[in-house]
Amino acid sequence: MNFVQGLKCLFCETVYPVRVGYTCPRCGITGILDVQYDYAGVGRILTRHRLAARRDQSHWRYRELLPVGSNAALPALSVGGTPLTSTPALARHLGIAKLFLKDDGRNATGSLKDRASSVGVVKAREKRRPIIACASTGNAASSCAGMAASMGLESVIFVPERAPEPKVTQLLIFGATVLRVRGTYEDAFQLCQRSCEKWGWYNRNSGINPYLVEGKKTAGLEIGEQLAWEPTDWVAVSVGDGCTVAAVWKGFRELKTLGLMARTPRILGVQAEGAAPVTAAFLSGEPMRPMEPATLADSIAVGVPRNWKRAVLAVRESGGTMINVSDGEILEAMRYTGRLSGIFAEPAAATAVAGLYRAVAEGRVGRRASAVALITGNGLKDVQSARTAAGQPYDIAPDGGALEEILRERKLI
Amino acid sequence: MNFVQGLKCLFCETVYPVRVGYTCPRCGITGILDVQYDYAGVGRILTRHRLAARRDQSHWRYRELLPVGSNAALPALSVGGTPLTSTPALARHLGIAKLFLKDDGRNATGSLKDRASSVGVVKAREKRRPIIACASTGNAASSCAGMAASMGLESVIFVPERAPEPKVTQLLIFGATVLRVRGTYEDAFQLCQRSCEKWGWYNRNSGINPYLVEGKKTAGLEIGEQLAWEPTDWVAVSVGDGCTVAAVWKGFRELKTLGLMARTPRILGVQAEGAAPVTAAFLSGEPMRPMEPATLADSIAVGVPRNWKRAVLAVRESGGTMINVSDGEILEAMRYTGRLSGIFAEPAAATAVAGLYRAVAEGRVGRRASAVALITGNGLKDVQSARTAAGQPYDIAPDGGALEEILRERKLI
Repeated sequence: MNFVQGLKCLFCETVYPVRVGYTCPRCGITGILDVQYDYAGVGRILTRHRLAARRDQSHWRYRELLPVGSNAALPALSVGGTPLTSTPALARHLGIAKLFLKDDGRNATGSLKDRASSVGVVKAREKRRPIIACASTGNAASSCAGMAASMGLESVIFVPERAPEPKVTQLLIFGATVLRVRGTYEDAFQLCQRSCEKWGWYNRNSGINPYLVEGKKTAGLEIGEQLAWEPTDWVAVSVGDGCTVAAVWKGFRELKTLGLMARTPRILGVQAEGAAPVTAAFLSGEPMRPMEPATLADSIAVGVPRNWKRAVLAVRESGGTMINVSDGEILEAMRYTGRLSGIFAEPAAATAVAGLYRAVAEGRVGRRASAVALITGNGLKDVQSARTAAGQPYDIAPDGGALEEILRERKLI
Repeated sequence: MNFVQGLKCLFCETVYPVRVGYTCPRCGITGILDVQYDYAGVGRILTRHRLAARRDQSHWRYRELLPVGSNAALPALSVGGTPLTSTPALARHLGIAKLFLKDDGRNATGSLKDRASSVGVVKAREKRRPIIACASTGNAASSCAGMAASMGLESVIFVPERAPEPKVTQLLIFGATVLRVRGTYEDAFQLCQRSCEKWGWYNRNSGINPYLVEGKKTAGLEIGEQLAWEPTDWVAVSVGDGCTVAAVWKGFRELKTLGLMARTPRILGVQAEGAAPVTAAFLSGEPMRPMEPATLADSIAVGVPRNWKRAVLAVRESGGTMINVSDGEILEAMRYTGRLSGIFAEPAAATAVAGLYRAVAEGRVGRRASAVALITGNGLKDVQSARTAAGQPYDIAPDGGALEEILRERKLI
């Protein structure tokens, strides 16, 4: 059963039937559409009790809240159901009472984007499109390619020049046709748009496709259920395009609407200083002003965020706030997150932790607070940045050589 | 409750109480000890019904079959519970009836070794050792460091020169003291041994520590349960040291002993041609003869496999066989596995798939057979090899340039 009622433009608020294209016919490409559900109908099925009894640990357990038919073919690759890990040592380091990491680096292709892509390939199949395309700085790309491989679809991926080699390699392994555009993310995005229109490919760009955010929101749904419906005070999410933070918020709001959770957490949206147009719009109340992105956190290095308005509305509605962190703080967060939790976060993911650290230091998040930081991608996806953060091993001779000195220096003997 | 009854030497067959050290006091370092359980006692608790009701999806759900006390502190990082994915397109490519990939690249640090390390850190804590050490070509190392971080232990890691940079970076991020030994795996192993003895560190080397294989066997336990206790005809596992293949077999044997599974699968042990002393010993019936390892599959590039005998016995007992594949076949398997399943396997993991491919081609595995290939590590852990396999993206200008030509060449338009 499908509970989707229509698609509502976030700008002009017109509601359309699902047959409409990707964005609002009236507002054009800025008119992002939001999927509307019959929550009364969903609520009759999706009770705490019924959820607890479901064996499916993947994100399809929330199928009534996803825009896919009940008979839709789903990708064989398991998506979602990622661990929410309590990290007391990291909480102490940040200076808060309780901290959990939601490790979405454990998804099939190593990032939260699998949640979106899995819905994307189901929609492509539904619309009988054999080719799915996307433009991405990396994670959406590899996830799109991986999910397409799992569904037997072809994928065409447009990546900007700066996409890290591991992510490009990953999607070549998945058999994608990879087009590296000599330019920025924006150039890749535009070329992908034109190509989808020209050749009728299914367009997996979260900046315009209304269904992807629905996949991403399951991160919020899972956090709620994993916390036994008692949300933390804060949930920290890094912000690039704005789609993920809006999606996670939508998940929490839906849990409240359905009566599954009595209250919602406040969202801490975190951007990298070098790519922070959403924070600027949030703080000024003015429309977003594009900027030239400059941060090592490539997954959130977005200068023209398509979902900026949705992100600003989400953070505001949650009663939360936005904050920026430097690349230095991000690298530092990769290091202490790894050392204190055993979770290897990619720069964009560590950004959420760094933001929380700064928000506590500035008194914007209280010392008695509990929080979740969303780890949006696996550190293995961008080892180059990690190397900068991690330092070097000690080189020693097979006979041990300077071993004792090193151990003394490390205070191990 | 702890059902461990003792430790039995695999060479002289003496059974010791658990208080004994790492290896057989009589046989020395070659006397690997095997943990013995009170299976009658375990069987009274671990029924199909009880297992089905357990909410814990991690490998601790098989706690009665693990050598840890019921009150032992466990690492917060979730281990095991990795997906078993049906891959019909890959099955067709291999020419068999049914194929599943058990994706252990989805573990916390990206490899099956987390199963072993998680038990290792619990034992270290139990023995009040604040430092855990290991020598490893990579995965055991990063897994040891990650699990140590999660448990608040210090880790000291000895890696050989050839360890891939991503794996080294990963363990530096986890705060390990990393000692890169100018030499082979064997040199790193020996130095680690001496250091553990000298400074009293807990020794996480699966070549001598009897508890690690117990963690690894949960991969077999999970495969059995995920197949609803109806095993496939074959389970393909790549072989380096020999510990993993022996462990997986132990898991299956235990399921049969406990009456949870009526029959066991046959094991296909697969080695890389350039590091195949276990296959040689299996085929000749003679003791293992060390060799200089030469394969790009670094996780199984072991020239002096400590667990060779255990591996040979396991494969023989299962009614299975062993086979070697070339580095070219491994790279090829990385490519078609990714393209046809959306799972990115590291070279040592793709080795299992390549072995299955060759075994089918040679008629050693029948065309009506069903199989599981164990994906022991994530491809992101060794992107350098993947790059060799994957080829290059197409570079294009922002205006699209030669796009149409490329699409025609790829048969997409």
